[in-house]
Amino acid sequence: MQALKNTWYAAVWSTELEQKLLQRTLLGESIVFYRNRAGRAFALANKCPHRFAPLHLGKLIEDTVECGYHGLRFNSAGKCVFNPDGDRLTPASAVVRSYPIQERYGLIWIWMGNPDVAAPELLPTFPFLETPQIYRPVTGYLRVNTNYRNMIDNLLDVAHVLIVHHDMLACPGLALAKTKVVREGAAIWANRLATNTEPPVIFDMMWRRARGDYAEAMDHWAESRWDAPSLISQNTGIALTGRPREEGLETKNAHFTTPETETSTHYFWAICRNFDIQNAKLDEEIYNGTEYAFVHQDQPILEGLQQIVGDREFWSMKPALLQGDVGAVEVRRALDRLIEDECSVSESARRAVSNVGSTV
Amino acid sequence: MQALKNTWYAAVWSTELEQKLLQRTLLGESIVFYRNRAGRAFALANKCPHRFAPLHLGKLIEDTVECGYHGLRFNSAGKCVFNPDGDRLTPASAVVRSYPIQERYGLIWIWMGNPDVAAPELLPTFPFLETPQIYRPVTGYLRVNTNYRNMIDNLLDVAHVLIVHHDMLACPGLALAKTKVVREGAAIWANRLATNTEPPVIFDMMWRRARGDYAEAMDHWAESRWDAPSLISQNTGIALTGRPREEGLETKNAHFTTPETETSTHYFWAICRNFDIQNAKLDEEIYNGTEYAFVHQDQPILEGLQQIVGDREFWSMKPALLQGDVGAVEVRRALDRLIEDECSVSESARRAVSNVGSTV
Amino acid sequence: MQALKNTWYAAVWSTELEQKLLQRTLLGESIVFYRNRAGRAFALANKCPHRFAPLHLGKLIEDTVECGYHGLRFNSAGKCVFNPDGDRLTPASAVVRSYPIQERYGLIWIWMGNPDVAAPELLPTFPFLETPQIYRPVTGYLRVNTNYRNMIDNLLDVAHVLIVHHDMLACPGLALAKTKVVREGAAIWANRLATNTEPPVIFDMMWRRARGDYAEAMDHWAESRWDAPSLISQNTGIALTGRPREEGLETKNAHFTTPETETSTHYFWAICRNFDIQNAKLDEEIYNGTEYAFVHQDQPILEGLQQIVGDREFWSMKPALLQGDVGAVEVRRALDRLIEDECSVSESARRAVSNVGSTV
Repeated sequence: MQALKNTWYAAVWSTELEQKLLQRTLLGESIVFYRNRAGRAFALANKCPHRFAPLHLGKLIEDTVECGYHGLRFNSAGKCVFNPDGDRLTPASAVVRSYPIQERYGLIWIWMGNPDVAAPELLPTFPFLETPQIYRPVTGYLRVNTNYRNMIDNLLDVAHVLIVHHDMLACPGLALAKTKVVREGAAIWANRLATNTEPPVIFDMMWRRARGDYAEAMDHWAESRWDAPSLISQNTGIALTGRPREEGLETKNAHFTTPETETSTHYFWAICRNFDIQNAKLDEEIYNGTEYAFVHQDQPILEGLQQIVGDREFWSMKPALLQGDVGAVEVRRALDRLIEDECSVSESARRAVSNVGSTV
Repeated sequence: MQALKNTWYAAVWSTELEQKLLQRTLLGESIVFYRNRAGRAFALANKCPHRFAPLHLGKLIEDTVECGYHGLRFNSAGKCVFNPDGDRLTPASAVVRSYPIQERYGLIWIWMGNPDVAAPELLPTFPFLETPQIYRPVTGYLRVNTNYRNMIDNLLDVAHVLIVHHDMLACPGLALAKTKVVREGAAIWANRLATNTEPPVIFDMMWRRARGDYAEAMDHWAESRWDAPSLISQNTGIALTGRPREEGLETKNAHFTTPETETSTHYFWAICRNFDIQNAKLDEEIYNGTEYAFVHQDQPILEGLQQIVGDREFWSMKPALLQGDVGAVEVRRALDRLIEDECSVSESARRAVSNVGSTV
Repeated sequence: MQALKNTWYAAVWSTELEQKLLQRTLLGESIVFYRNRAGRAFALANKCPHRFAPLHLGKLIEDTVECGYHGLRFNSAGKCVFNPDGDRLTPASAVVRSYPIQERYGLIWIWMGNPDVAAPELLPTFPFLETPQIYRPVTGYLRVNTNYRNMIDNLLDVAHVLIVHHDMLACPGLALAKTKVVREGAAIWANRLATNTEPPVIFDMMWRRARGDYAEAMDHWAESRWDAPSLISQNTGIALTGRPREEGLETKNAHFTTPETETSTHYFWAICRNFDIQNAKLDEEIYNGTEYAFVHQDQPILEGLQQIVGDREFWSMKPALLQGDVGAVEVRRALDRLIEDECSVSESARRAVSNVGSTV
């Protein structure tokens, strides 16, 4: 499928992965994940090289993956290390593709492209996901029947909040603020700030609980950062008008999306708050509220528009763009460029190889 | 899909449409219907021009359609008249296609082609649908997984009645009568008349109830008229042999079919009788009987043959035609010609435009 | 679909077919089977030549198949012999394809190719299916969502037993034996023999029941014969080490597979034992055990690998072959050749015909 390959994608929450086989399709490729006895995560192509049985139907034998069809066993590098049958030979061609993996921010990350250029430090940083004593995380996972780029659009777009999340997150002041795009290296921010406004219902509730009643107006900010390929992190918060943000309430949110197929997406989310962090009941409310907002409010729209768009290319449909789209549009173009660059590099490499071939 | 565009299609029963959004796919296009506060019906393409969300997931705000994603509002001409967000500008390109509509015969009719040539008077007339005091209508709707042309074939074809509707509508005399094709302007009639025969069970029952026992033989007629693109109207009745039809019992029936996709059809039917018109119990019997006949008798055949035919062209399959097919065959050819003419006109227009372009 | 045409395929168990219409899709073609009043089986294309209704929605009228749409009746040769409608003419073009059939070994066999070359004696022989007094059969049918060639692979492959059927059929000795390929005319055998081994659990159980306890080691053999196109017959048995097979227990098994579509297969199986043949309870145990092994052990693997392979050609995927694959590989190649030969003959015939045409 059309997606960036030489990059890190969120694949599995760390808590989802145990010492057994877990199948997940990413970028159209079926992959089997597991942890070895030492707890380290690995990812192999979910296809036995012998007769193409899906490896996830087999089992872990010590730290090898045993195919459920003929019992070939593969180590974490994908090499066949055991054949229980006949002459017991393990042919050199019996190799499963092994994918580079790293575990960070509570997630298993996978590199779907050329393993030679997979460097852990190419993963953008999300400090708020590593400081639970400051930012208490609540996390979830959903699978959505829409192209992952529709998800990116949605997550960079404050404008939809007024309508889609009218009950809890809408803020009349923020709806009238313009979106500002800010570049930060390769990252792109789409930011809105409303001063002297009424806060969203959900923040109003949380403020009253944490701090009590208030009479003043509020400032409300919503800032979304895109990192390639499809990683959104957000700051959303309120403070009394004119007061420093540090005195306010803020959540830092991660919304990591990974293409499953052209028309479906894995969605990993984390809402991390800097207030009332010991409150387990609030954790539950945030989990339920976030899942509700997504499943009942965003998801029908995102799946509905996927049905309408089908396999047509976005720009070919000539979207009537609005001010609030500036962030999403800049990100679409940046991602288009990254994908084109990667394709042309692959194409050059292919030509170079075939030239060498023809000279020899 | 392959279908006539510059013509009126039945889209929605008037009674189905209220002051809210109703989605229906016609000729492969998703359309949203609604009534404004004055009760007038409108039809818009079900695709927001901004980010392609389906408009039917939004709602009516006064007489505008509000998109459920970003709150853009469209008037009945499809023009964007409100944007709640940011600079509140409504770009000129934010226009939804609006379809010509007319409401007549208890139905909303839609024109899927060039709106400049949509004239209400191009809709054929069905007087019996406008005189309930003479012809009491009983109406229904079904969705069928077959190409709409298989439905036309079925409705113009008396021959299938003997087998498919053997229990209620079959008439041995009519089975042996030949089908006569009669042209009436652009309309095509396929007619059968049986004289001096035993009437179908259903007519026998209705005669006995309305008029009492009878000893004589009957005349029985079944006449089906096709009007482009896919509108069938019928006269079916009985009279004592040799007596004028006016002394008999007759139903005038409408069977309006509209392609949903290449392999599915909307079916709007009306059975209108000129006898016992105050009898609400008879209304119910007719409704149940008609639905039963269609759902349990015609529909399995029509859906089964669609599975067999798949996407093959009808004539390429070399049907072994019978006398009873003369009406359906003539209609197939007439409709083929209309579609070809429309395509070649569109093609000429396209060429003319591109010639102008190249001269300039 | 890609499959041998001029050959016999198992289509229906004799016990499945009564004096009524039975639909089954074979090699992508929908076919209707029935018995006439004398009990003889016939197969017709499931498509009325008039308007393409599926004939299986009609009914048997005496020994003709009546189409459920217009009542055309077809004799067992596929010729239209009655039209109830209008002029009652039966056009010469109203012919349904009739397929050569033979009934043997408890099955209806069908010839999907050129009927002129369909000879009953081209069906391979399976004597054990005709001697129930020696080999007591237990039979079953399953439909599997995998290409039929994956089924052939599986049935010729002893190696998978150790893993897939680890609980009942696995035999450590047999796993270490090599597969020997033996040609017998056009048939190909893939055989394994283990001497001086522990028998599989299921054979151990059956021996103890039939013969009582034993202290010695056993010989265990598993021999699978392929006959074109997709007919596997097997000998599997045990005897006390060094003793003649005739003193042992043996089942002769038939596994006849027939493509339904490219990705689904009809599977007819028979397990025929030469011991304890009066034991109806054992029949039931064999039925349940075989169905369990297939449905819960083989089927998930075979359907899973079909998902992985999709429509890719097997060799293009470069399987890493093992010693145990020698039988399946030789059969794949033999079947490839048969299909290629048949295609090139058809191609030559087509060219010859078109040359004649162009000369005239």
